[in-house]
Amino acid sequence: MARCSLIDGEEVAHAEVRRRQILDAAVEVFRRRGFHAASMAEIAKTFGMSAGHIYNYFDSKEAIIEAIVARDIDEFLTLTAQMQGEADLRHEMVERVDEGTDRRLDADHASLQIEIVAEASRNPKIADMVQRADATVRRRLIELVRAAARGPVDEADLVARAELLLALFEGLMLRTLRQPEIDRQALKRGLRDAVRHMIGA
Amino acid sequence: MARCSLIDGEEVAHAEVRRRQILDAAVEVFRRRGFHAASMAEIAKTFGMSAGHIYNYFDSKEAIIEAIVARDIDEFLTLTAQMQGEADLRHEMVERVDEGTDRRLDADHASLQIEIVAEASRNPKIADMVQRADATVRRRLIELVRAAARGPVDEADLVARAELLLALFEGLMLRTLRQPEIDRQALKRGLRDAVRHMIGA
Repeated sequence: MARCSLIDGEEVAHAEVRRRQILDAAVEVFRRRGFHAASMAEIAKTFGMSAGHIYNYFDSKEAIIEAIVARDIDEFLTLTAQMQGEADLRHEMVERVDEGTDRRLDADHASLQIEIVAEASRNPKIADMVQRADATVRRRLIELVRAAARGPVDEADLVARAELLLALFEGLMLRTLRQPEIDRQALKRGLRDAVRHMIGA
Repeated sequence: MARCSLIDGEEVAHAEVRRRQILDAAVEVFRRRGFHAASMAEIAKTFGMSAGHIYNYFDSKEAIIEAIVARDIDEFLTLTAQMQGEADLRHEMVERVDEGTDRRLDADHASLQIEIVAEASRNPKIADMVQRADATVRRRLIELVRAAARGPVDEADLVARAELLLALFEGLMLRTLRQPEIDRQALKRGLRDAVRHMIGA
């Protein structure tokens, strides 16, 4: 029995590694070709898997996007859970601005995210998935903004603060594709100041 | 001679109307199908033109995108020239926030813009065009931000202020696609406050 469990565990771990490899390959193909033009066969080929074999791991391109989006949410929830544990949340939120900026100014990251939103605007299944994912992110960010607020703030205004933080940081992804030569140091100074203002720090 | 000029003028006007019709049809097709999947034939068909005829007006899908982008820049330059003529520029910039917000929260407008940036991330010709257009917009916005500043501000910080305003407003286009139910009134209150802070009003 023990041996059996071990083998099962190994198989699960192996499948997990495979899934991650497929996601990484898919990210690369979606970025280069766009979601629409990318095929499951092309994704499989990038690491020598047959087109048929990939379907053991993902049903469709949509399922791959769903897993990419789920991975991003997990990272966000892990990061923000750490922040919620810090004694001085306002300070922590400002301190994390540089890291959040670098992530969103990364052109590879940005182009994949923009590709997903572009696809959402014409594919209802992707739109639904993106909107549900966004609701999870938003809920967490509203908690953070509420905890950071000095004194009581109207609920609609708290939600708006979270929306503005999201708009500002997501907007950086469009900026890096439109203007790859941004002066990051000055931008980060301005962003720290803007975030301080928005969260009332 | 006078008659000749009149006919030429009419022909030019007619060609201009045709070009505008093609742009409007293309906007619709790009939005619905994405730039990659859209064809010149499909764009022509939406108003009963033959696929060959459309090439009298535009060489390629790229040329159509270029004209759409040029039209957007013209609108921006016209709007901001009006603002530059106002006595109280800071007040004027805050007053225009609601209008700029509504424009960017319009899902049709947003999905076309996102589609263009997504295409830019994998098509060097579109990337070059989008980046040149952005440089024009940026230059004008930096002028505005410089004129609105109270006292001398470091040039890098002025540029960063313009970048942050662009990130914030462009980010709204991603927000409206990820979260179509945004509370616009609270958002506009927050945006006016953020813009006031960013321009030092």
